[in-house]
Amino acid sequence: MEFHDCTDLIQAILKQSPVQEGIVHIQSTHTTAAVLVNENEPLVLEDMKRILERIAPQSEDYLHNDFTIRTVNMTDREDRNGHSHCKAIFLPVSQMMNVVEGCLDLGRWQRIFLLELDRAKERILSVMVMGS
Amino acid sequence: MEFHDCTDLIQAILKQSPVQEGIVHIQSTHTTAAVLVNENEPLVLEDMKRILERIAPQSEDYLHNDFTIRTVNMTDREDRNGHSHCKAIFLPVSQMMNVVEGCLDLGRWQRIFLLELDRAKERILSVMVMGS
Amino acid sequence: MEFHDCTDLIQAILKQSPVQEGIVHIQSTHTTAAVLVNENEPLVLEDMKRILERIAPQSEDYLHNDFTIRTVNMTDREDRNGHSHCKAIFLPVSQMMNVVEGCLDLGRWQRIFLLELDRAKERILSVMVMGS
Repeated sequence: MEFHDCTDLIQAILKQSPVQEGIVHIQSTHTTAAVLVNENEPLVLEDMKRILERIAPQSEDYLHNDFTIRTVNMTDREDRNGHSHCKAIFLPVSQMMNVVEGCLDLGRWQRIFLLELDRAKERILSVMVMGS
Repeated sequence: MEFHDCTDLIQAILKQSPVQEGIVHIQSTHTTAAVLVNENEPLVLEDMKRILERIAPQSEDYLHNDFTIRTVNMTDREDRNGHSHCKAIFLPVSQMMNVVEGCLDLGRWQRIFLLELDRAKERILSVMVMGS
Repeated sequence: MEFHDCTDLIQAILKQSPVQEGIVHIQSTHTTAAVLVNENEPLVLEDMKRILERIAPQSEDYLHNDFTIRTVNMTDREDRNGHSHCKAIFLPVSQMMNVVEGCLDLGRWQRIFLLELDRAKERILSVMVMGS
């Protein structure tokens, strides 16, 4: 698991938009990567990894990982990532944030993260800005 | 628990809308049914059910199910569904998706599910399309 | 943990808006307070507290609470709230609701809560209404 702080990236996208009041929707296009809002304090991110790992441990058996019985959505390079999917259902696949005066209406400690739940790989966020 | 893949239904609703760029918001109007985005691979859906059941097992005692003490929101046919509510708080009651060129901006493996957390019953989704 | 039912407050904000069809986005500006939609039945709220406490117990050790090693985001009055952050990642930081005929498109049992995950303190919700 890895937290990537995307707040500055989203803010930069907002700066390129004429929208002053509205919303921005940041959507992961993946099933094993989440978009999370919380504090960027390195120790609490480690705490979160520990709790998430406990919910759906990588060391457990998952039917999704049993390639002797699985037939659906099989690719040439299939990861044993049942645990990643099972963590993902508890986390937001996308995050909406209010936009005020052209900026993210974030609280003091709020940061936006892409949370990688699988092995490190390239990820795509779909970002939509709407408003006036 | 039962996963109902609603992706084609949502896409069909989008087709009837003039919106080309914007968002679609799919909202469950229920407290024991969630709207989830993940992969439609039958085995991983079974994995998810197992993990969700562990978080809030149906076999546990819930105050909500104790009709000898409960007085609020009692109906003639009250289900013992405390476990369903307790699962629901961990899952999205609604899902926003970006719309690009009149289509859902989904990643390769992303599908939209209504996730039934209670006994099978008729459910209503409220769908709002916005954009230009 | 404390549930604050904000449904009437949000409905009152909607009444002041000219929007008849659209969306309302209710965003917590905090990292230890969530926005949740579920049933306002006092016993099920107690059930939810029990399940949430089990996911990330206050009695556990969190690195975030270890002020002998932590250096980031330290304030004069720092709470030992690692458990609150770890609960928060499983809960929505914001909630979108559809607006129909100027009202929240809520199901029969749906209510909107601010869920306090830390000690009681003043909290700010950012509310955006969009539509026609």
